[in-house]
Amino acid sequence: MTDVLSPEAELEERLREHLRQIVPPNQALAAAAARRENDLAKPRGSLGRLESLAIQLCAVQNTSRPRHESRLVVVCAADHGVVEEGVSPYPADVTRQQIENFQAGGGAITTLSRTAGAKVLLLDVGVNYDFAPHPNRLDAKIAKGTKNMAKGPAMTRAEALRSVLAGLELVLAQPPLDLVAAGEMGIGNTTPSSAIASLYVGLTPQQATGVGSGLDPSQVARKAAVVAKALEVNRPDPQDPIDVLAKVGGLEIGAMTGVYLGAAVRRAAAVIDGFIGSAAALLAEKLSPGVKSYFVAGHRSKEKAHAAVLESLGLKPLLDLDMWLGEGSGAVAAMLIIQCAVVHFNEMRTLAEAGVHDTVEAQPD
Amino acid sequence: MTDVLSPEAELEERLREHLRQIVPPNQALAAAAARRENDLAKPRGSLGRLESLAIQLCAVQNTSRPRHESRLVVVCAADHGVVEEGVSPYPADVTRQQIENFQAGGGAITTLSRTAGAKVLLLDVGVNYDFAPHPNRLDAKIAKGTKNMAKGPAMTRAEALRSVLAGLELVLAQPPLDLVAAGEMGIGNTTPSSAIASLYVGLTPQQATGVGSGLDPSQVARKAAVVAKALEVNRPDPQDPIDVLAKVGGLEIGAMTGVYLGAAVRRAAAVIDGFIGSAAALLAEKLSPGVKSYFVAGHRSKEKAHAAVLESLGLKPLLDLDMWLGEGSGAVAAMLIIQCAVVHFNEMRTLAEAGVHDTVEAQPD
Repeated sequence: MTDVLSPEAELEERLREHLRQIVPPNQALAAAAARRENDLAKPRGSLGRLESLAIQLCAVQNTSRPRHESRLVVVCAADHGVVEEGVSPYPADVTRQQIENFQAGGGAITTLSRTAGAKVLLLDVGVNYDFAPHPNRLDAKIAKGTKNMAKGPAMTRAEALRSVLAGLELVLAQPPLDLVAAGEMGIGNTTPSSAIASLYVGLTPQQATGVGSGLDPSQVARKAAVVAKALEVNRPDPQDPIDVLAKVGGLEIGAMTGVYLGAAVRRAAAVIDGFIGSAAALLAEKLSPGVKSYFVAGHRSKEKAHAAVLESLGLKPLLDLDMWLGEGSGAVAAMLIIQCAVVHFNEMRTLAEAGVHDTVEAQPD
Repeated sequence: MTDVLSPEAELEERLREHLRQIVPPNQALAAAAARRENDLAKPRGSLGRLESLAIQLCAVQNTSRPRHESRLVVVCAADHGVVEEGVSPYPADVTRQQIENFQAGGGAITTLSRTAGAKVLLLDVGVNYDFAPHPNRLDAKIAKGTKNMAKGPAMTRAEALRSVLAGLELVLAQPPLDLVAAGEMGIGNTTPSSAIASLYVGLTPQQATGVGSGLDPSQVARKAAVVAKALEVNRPDPQDPIDVLAKVGGLEIGAMTGVYLGAAVRRAAAVIDGFIGSAAALLAEKLSPGVKSYFVAGHRSKEKAHAAVLESLGLKPLLDLDMWLGEGSGAVAAMLIIQCAVVHFNEMRTLAEAGVHDTVEAQPD
């Protein structure tokens, strides 16, 4: 039948087919994991979020002994036509410059990923530059950046679908994965993220718009007006997340959405980075309601609306270190805390194994 | 001249001699590190506390390129006579049981230290048990636990001095160290910690006393009354931290104090764990005013007065994961975040090296 479908309808069907693979995390394994936590040689609950993380990972990974070793961060890169409205203090070409820096291994995300043991895949879905081929960069360019969303849709519906599929199918093509993060590079990309947050979290454009990479207050006000205008001009349908992505999103945001969905298909934990990743996470949850149970919020960024977005997803950040860099930096740092959660769960002895015993509640001070 | 000194005076002099070795962190290197942070290929300040940590570590370690590789946690163990007042839900023998569990590598701290790359030294300064020798435990037993501080001093002044020296001189005897934490095991040890916190942070015994390893509200009230009684009976002199330690402290708390002081002598960062470690940190700061500039607060525990103690030391915790286990668990987890701070600082390229350039402020979104 596919030959009679339009390309757009084919893409829709391909995405739907992937989404049908997503099942809820295994709650029976979560319950068993909670029982094991209570048997370990420590006061019950005393490892706090390390315990709840281990329990979540058992359910997500469909296992009684979670894993953390195979870690991936997909750094999705694209440009944004809306930069011509003056929404970023930095010229769009910095997207290209940073990708070349990442290729060479000298960026924040590449450096932190090395120390966090995460493999980095650079995915170009829309940088406005003809790169020379490079072994450290995957080319899946859908367009040379989005169009200016203050004047009309950022991209076509087909492009939006392609961006999600690019991230999703890249994750599906990888070897076994335990923890999957998405990072980004795209000058201007907090602006579409604010539009998405405004739409889904019920924030005004002013509430949803922050300093990004360092705007002053009058520039923030201007950026918020651009967000408001983009929403007004495009009137995206919140019930249709692909429409939202197409009209007020970004190509790398779509790819990040796909990465999170792909993680869920693979039954890996999706580690969410900062504000832009959380906007992509909102889209993923709208595309596949409940998929947020695969999410771990890596950190709370300083970007103004990030906390509200996380709260709307029911996610509590692991780290709160005043970071606001993006690129995936907070997510890969959080992988080291997830490692602590997995390892204590798998390797600690139980009270009985440890020979710690007295009352039923017998546990150390 | 030492032959004419009393043993106590000799111990005092030995401690004073060590304290004279502590110098302030190198502020010129901190300033140089701050300039390097501003040159790295990211928006200025966008790595938040990873940046301030890297700057602190340069000053602490007296270097332009900080280190994180050599990590140590000294787990100090002792018993507490005050347990006979019913301040812990668990029998004192759990101290011994957990030490044997740690020796075997199956405890929370030993498990987390393995994954965090920290060497564990178990230091018995006062467990009420005659252990068989074990290669994973250092014996420096000063007494078989403290006396009941609700009835009189927990220990003699000489014992208090010996406990501090045990931790301090153990750290001095180690190979080069970058990050040093102290952990603890001692049923009942939140009670002396609350007494110390009450005295130094200006909290009432009620404000300073929490649930420890899981008391119910009426038990917490009883424990607070024990703290109040211990302070009343002993009237420790806040100007004399050794007097405080002797009267209302614990042998492992003294050893932890010594570990922090030893870290400063060695110009390593002292990573503070939870409530008990923070009480020890208060004593260290009183013994060597300014030594807190060597401290990194690993995490905020759920124990009630911990946040107030950290605040009084001017420390902001790195992690806030609802943990309240102690043992050093939060400190070793935090070492992984310190690793991120060190590595980004040392390995990221500068804007110039990365070829990222536009305005003076040229940095990515």
